[in-house]
This record gives sequence, C-alpha cells and structure tokens, in this order.
Amino acid sequence: MDGLLVTHLPDVRYLSGFTGSNAALALAGGRAVLFTDGRYTAQAKAEAKGMRVVIAPKAAAVAASEWLAEAKVWRCGFDDGNTTVAALKQMRAAVPAKVRRGLFEPVGPLVAKLRWVKDADEIAKIRKAAALGCKLFDGMLEFLEPGLTEMAVAAELEHRARLAGAEGMSFETIVASGERSALPHGRASAAKLPKQGFCTLDFGVVLDGYMSDMTRTVHIGKARGAEREVYDAVLEAQEAAVRKVAPGVAAGDVDEAARSVLRRAKLDKYFSHSTGHGVGLEIHEGPRLAAKQEQKLEAGMVITIEPGVYMPGKFGLRIEDMVLVTSKGGSSQGGEVLTPSVKACLEL
Amino acid sequence: MDGLLVTHLPDVRYLSGFTGSNAALALAGGRAVLFTDGRYTAQAKAEAKGMRVVIAPKAAAVAASEWLAEAKVWRCGFDDGNTTVAALKQMRAAVPAKVRRGLFEPVGPLVAKLRWVKDADEIAKIRKAAALGCKLFDGMLEFLEPGLTEMAVAAELEHRARLAGAEGMSFETIVASGERSALPHGRASAAKLPKQGFCTLDFGVVLDGYMSDMTRTVHIGKARGAEREVYDAVLEAQEAAVRKVAPGVAAGDVDEAARSVLRRAKLDKYFSHSTGHGVGLEIHEGPRLAAKQEQKLEAGMVITIEPGVYMPGKFGLRIEDMVLVTSKGGSSQGGEVLTPSVKACLEL
Repeated sequence: MDGLLVTHLPDVRYLSGFTGSNAALALAGGRAVLFTDGRYTAQAKAEAKGMRVVIAPKAAAVAASEWLAEAKVWRCGFDDGNTTVAALKQMRAAVPAKVRRGLFEPVGPLVAKLRWVKDADEIAKIRKAAALGCKLFDGMLEFLEPGLTEMAVAAELEHRARLAGAEGMSFETIVASGERSALPHGRASAAKLPKQGFCTLDFGVVLDGYMSDMTRTVHIGKARGAEREVYDAVLEAQEAAVRKVAPGVAAGDVDEAARSVLRRAKLDKYFSHSTGHGVGLEIHEGPRLAAKQEQKLEAGMVITIEPGVYMPGKFGLRIEDMVLVTSKGGSSQGGEVLTPSVKACLEL
Repeated sequence: MDGLLVTHLPDVRYLSGFTGSNAALALAGGRAVLFTDGRYTAQAKAEAKGMRVVIAPKAAAVAASEWLAEAKVWRCGFDDGNTTVAALKQMRAAVPAKVRRGLFEPVGPLVAKLRWVKDADEIAKIRKAAALGCKLFDGMLEFLEPGLTEMAVAAELEHRARLAGAEGMSFETIVASGERSALPHGRASAAKLPKQGFCTLDFGVVLDGYMSDMTRTVHIGKARGAEREVYDAVLEAQEAAVRKVAPGVAAGDVDEAARSVLRRAKLDKYFSHSTGHGVGLEIHEGPRLAAKQEQKLEAGMVITIEPGVYMPGKFGLRIEDMVLVTSKGGSSQGGEVLTPSVKACLEL
C-alpha cells in the first residue's frame, strides 16, 4: 500500500484539523493534500495549517482520486465502512483504466481505529466536555418538576449548554419520563413530567469538536418499592462494569460484568442493548462494549458504560458514565470516571 | 427486480413511519418487513403501523438480507449511494453462495427520488416548519445587538425553537457576523456581533420530521455603499431565481438565473456554491440546483434558493428561501415562497 484516501469527515478532521462538510485527504509519498470546495477556501487554509489545500469544483473524493493516480500511486487504501458503493464507483471512474482495477483497496477503519486511543490533548478536550455535561445535569436538578414537558426540559438544557459555550449537542437530547422511560431512545416529546415516576436524561455536548455523553435517571416524587429495586440493580450493574474497566480487559467482559448483575436480578431480558461504546470526535466510536466482543481495552480509550432496564408499559431507567481507560488507576482500578455527577437514586 | 432493500433511514421512515436509528425495510412479493433491534421493540410497533416488525440481534440490513434470500428473491435492488462497500459485503455474506453473486443490484436513490415530490400531507408539515422558521427569525430581530456573541444568538434562537415545539434544528445553526460573514458556512462562534457589519443567520427547525431552511442577512448599524450594492445584487439574483421556478424548468436554469445577475454585477466569482437543493425529511435532498443540472422541476418539489456573495477578509451575505414548486401559481409564476420574512436590507 503506497497511498491512503481518507474521506470520513471525523478522520479528515483528526488528521488535518479541517472541519468542513466536504473533504477528502490524500496521503502518498510523504505528502498530504486536502481537497474541498469553494465554500471552504478560507476555512481550509486557516484550519489545515501547513497542508496543501486544493479547491475543486467536484466531489472531493473524485478530485483526490485523480491526484492519487497522477501521483503514480498503485495501491491506495480506503475505508470501506465509510465509502458508499456509488462513491467507490466514482473514484474508480476518475482514474485511468489501466490502474482502475487494482488501485483502491478496502482497509477498513484504519484512521478511525487510531482515534480509539486518545492523546493527552484530546483527553483534555473530552474532560472539558464531560465536565460541562455534569455541570449542566447538576443545574437541571432544580429545574425539573412535574408538569413540564420533556421538550421544555430539553430546551432549557440545550440553552444552558449553548450559553456555556457548547458548539452543539452530541445527539438529539433524550428526555424520557413516566411510562416513556421504558423507551431506551425516547427523544424529548410533548409528554409532561409525571408527579411520580422516573425521568431519564441522556445528552451530550460538543466542545472543540469532542463529544460528551452521559445519562442519569432521577425519580420525581417518592419511588415505589419495585422502582427502587430496579434502580439499585441497574446502579450495581453499572458500577460493576466500571470497576471491570482496565487495559487488557476484553470489551465483552465489561459488558458481561453489567449483564451478569442484571441476570442475577432476573432483569437481563429487559437490558436490550449493549453496555457502551467509544466516544470522541464522534458520538459512537469503537470499541463496542457488547456481548462476546474480544477487542481489548487500551489506556487512552474513552468509553461509555450505560446499562439500562426497560419494562414496556411500566418504566425504565439507564445510568451512563464516560470512563477513561487508564493504566495509572483512578476512581477505580483501571478506569477513571469523567462524569462524576451523583448516581444514587435522587427523589426530586 | 423482484425485491427492494431499503436501508437509508429517511427512506425507511418515509415508507414505514419508523424513526429509530437502526432499521432496514425489505420489500418483496407484496410484503414489507421492517427489521430493527431490541431498543426499538415498542417504538417500531407503534410507528410502523400494520407492518410486520422483526427484532434482530444483528445489523438490520443483514437480517433483512437473510429474509430476502429465504423469500426466494432473486434480484433485489439497493441504494448504492447510501450503502457502504463494507455493508454490501455483509449483506452478500448473509445469503447463500448460490444467489450471492446476482442478488443485490444497485438501483441508486429510487426511494429518495420518490421523496423529491412531496404529497399534500408532507407539504403541510413543511409549511409549518417553514412558518416557524420565519416566526423565529422575525422575533430575533429585536434580540440582535452589537457585542452579543454569535453563540449567544444561536443559543437564543435554538431555545425559542425548542419552546415553540421544534424537535431539533435541521443543521448546525450558522451565525456569521462582521468579517466572518464572508464564510459561507460560518457556524456560530465566540466572535461578537460588530457595531457595524453584516450578520448572516442560516438555520432550520425540525417539526414532525420535516425540516425548514432559511437564511437572512441583516446589517447591524448603517450599511456602507459597497455593502449595500452587494446586498442589492444578491437580492436581485435571489428574486430572479425564485421567479424562474416552475414545473418543467431545468434546475440548472434556476441556478443560471441567479448566477447571471451576479455575473452582470461582476460578483459571480464570489458566489462559490450552488443555488439550492431539495429539502424535506433531510436537509439536503434532490433536486440539486447547480450549473448545468438538467433535472426538471416538478410540482410538489420543495427547494431552497440561496445565492450568496463572499468576499474573503471583507464581508459576505446570503439570502435563502424555501420555495414550493406549484402548477397553480403562487407569489410568483410557478413557485410559492414558504419563507416570507422580509428580504430588504434591514439595518438594525
């Protein structure tokens, strides 16, 4: 392989600093060239410092493919998990017929995998985003009250995030209250917070490109016995998984640490998703913390730990932290929780 | 072709009503089956009314591929513009070797193209989103003042959008003021609104899944002669393009209507992007209104018309409306402007 074509935007940003919405990065022979279009002339030069920038009036990947062929690259890797079938066809059509067949070689998420392990600068940015998330959650505790719509809660949270400097939210804010707490992905709706019931807040902020992700479930009014029992089981599962985090541990074993606690409580059938995922420039990065995943955790990875239990038509809850895998130890053996907001069952 | 595999989420939503983040829809022999995962059991049944829903612990496209092979489909279309090379490989690996080679056939954006022309129900939803956008813009006029950060402006706008019922913003809100107005895609930054200079607001809201998109550029303080001249040229270009909209007109001719006005004013080299795009469940849909596009406009399409001029290091501006292509006439011959906020140069 003597060349690499990078088209996945978070990968381009990671390698070049450029944040525009149309970009391709061609790497070959020790050179790196960034391709984008006329909307981004000024921005590309400012952000991709010291890198050659080519403004092309065509798709960036096509312009980059032409350059690679002209640079006499004979085998060029590309991320087949982030390149569409049609885009590959266009890339191939842009190069001379004699090199077309062999030029582009699928290499999977090469750059994305580099991003799984964060450097000190990235960790500092992620810490800031996570800390802002916690500050916002803590502040929202006084705002929540029965009768507010979930959307009003999301509006307030997002407004505070913006005023605190967030570039945006990491994903659509989840506010799921009462029976809706049984929806793992219950985006904020017109439903009103109940007088008595759970309210799950799952949200993240973007700071300097890096994302936070956290979930807390609070109880409005006094929790019933069954609710309390489920809450305690989810919390125990979450903390067991956090304790399991350390370099060299398989991602699947962290998942199993959470799942086995819920299995003992006969609640595992209501835990219908995986335990977590990497987070950074994207909200969902590797590694994936799911059953049987053999991928080993490494120091510098930042992952979420977010087990939940969802009982359709009744209630549900989830508790989620961001955890930095560290060889130095931290709040637990090999993982440092970046989102230290209280996890005990709060009754508001 | 005796089957179709739909995996692009807005297409799945369009055909089934399902709004989850993991889904595939298999169509064959008059049957439609929706595949998703355990997070969405309750939601899929509620949203995809009357449709068979299969909950699979694997990628939805893989589960759907297995079903298609079992249903004896022998040639199945898929959207190669929204299917990655790796996903196609997984789909192929999921079916028996004897049908693998010929089963999946690239058919391009078949369903997405259906979505280009909106039905009455969709137009009603888009009208509501566009009207909310205008109401928010009009309200912001009293909020804007020198010294506010662009992010504070975005925060206020987005908060008002949420409180008015928006599910979210269509894209990252653009607030570009002073010299930054020369950035076509200047996301809201920590820069402060100047005492004298342009401020471009480009934003959209999501209501019931449908997106709005509008841009207005106001001037804070009194506009200088050169600013005024450029503003008037952009406005003339924008209005010329709006007047050109009608069923049967080529998209490229609408682009040319705007571009030729700027060419006469010797400003066309500063108009560095295309004139517009379709909008609906996605912020960027077809048709694309760019130079030489031969695609004909059809009644029921909803497009943006958004020429701009960007003079690096000096200033820039853009004016954007959403326009419904209509055979009945409207505010102009064949296009009805859905975003009637004032377009004259406002000096605040």
